[in-house]
Amino acid sequence: MGILVETSARHMHVSEEHLDILFGKGAKLTWKKDLSQPGQYACAERVEVIGPKSRLTMSILGPTRPSTQVEISLTDARTLGVTAPIRESGDIKGSAGATLKGPAGEVELKEGVIVAKRHIHTTPEDAEAFGVKDKEVVDVLINTDERTLVFGEVVVRVSPSFATAMHIDTDEANAAGASGEVYATLVREA
Amino acid sequence: MGILVETSARHMHVSEEHLDILFGKGAKLTWKKDLSQPGQYACAERVEVIGPKSRLTMSILGPTRPSTQVEISLTDARTLGVTAPIRESGDIKGSAGATLKGPAGEVELKEGVIVAKRHIHTTPEDAEAFGVKDKEVVDVLINTDERTLVFGEVVVRVSPSFATAMHIDTDEANAAGASGEVYATLVREA
Repeated sequence: MGILVETSARHMHVSEEHLDILFGKGAKLTWKKDLSQPGQYACAERVEVIGPKSRLTMSILGPTRPSTQVEISLTDARTLGVTAPIRESGDIKGSAGATLKGPAGEVELKEGVIVAKRHIHTTPEDAEAFGVKDKEVVDVLINTDERTLVFGEVVVRVSPSFATAMHIDTDEANAAGASGEVYATLVREA
Repeated sequence: MGILVETSARHMHVSEEHLDILFGKGAKLTWKKDLSQPGQYACAERVEVIGPKSRLTMSILGPTRPSTQVEISLTDARTLGVTAPIRESGDIKGSAGATLKGPAGEVELKEGVIVAKRHIHTTPEDAEAFGVKDKEVVDVLINTDERTLVFGEVVVRVSPSFATAMHIDTDEANAAGASGEVYATLVREA
């Protein structure tokens, strides 16, 4: 049974407070495209993330969240000149900072810039079929002809509100030569 | 026995003819730093590589070669807007093109832009110790705590003129969370 692989390009999640500062008091996110995870969507709004070395523009993913979080690749981190740790979403304590610039204002983000730890979202039904549990760390094969990889340290997250998909970043997708519709399989000890 | 992992950032090799055009008739490469492979060195000269979407500046690695070859990551390829194939060094037929810009002139490179296929350089002595042969394709483990990976499709190249090292690009190093001094090990079937 294959797991759909989705590549996350750099993006950010914003708090209501920061949305107000970046796009003006009372600003609302503009839905652009649904994502695979139910209730999540790409927005039309774009924000400049400014580091010591350079700046990168990225989209906001909605809806708003309690804390602003910027998710970049390690390639992006080097481009920006920030030291972003590899973290699970939401675990931003002590992570990197950056300046965020929107059309209405700027935010000095003290922490919140991370490189997302690769993970699998899955439903309780699929988790049972795969034989995995919430928070389990698994090995996953992405078999492309040119750049086949086995990813260690893949965290499984189980929730009835998820759709089953593996999320990797652009560095990881490129290292696997993964483009188009790609499926991963769990690797089991013999 | 570990194999030293070296990460190749984007770079280029130039022909004498293109060196003349880019840096002026009779130009010579300026040694800056020796590389691990005997006789290879990083040069002070830098060239702008221009694609349909943007441009990237990169160093030349010396000495000059019969054909100019630009080695980029898939992240770089996307940045430039070129479709660069994953190839072994020297296998540039039908690969991507780009405009090269130096202080003295420009070259319209018809082909030569590739993403280097990951590989291991090794000496005959080390190859024997590892139990591998020239052109063999092996699986290699890079065990980092955060982003452990097993790389498939790693080509072994054996020559007495090599130093033993595994070469990966920046996407691959980032996907493995490899920074600083990192060693890889061959993965064997049980």
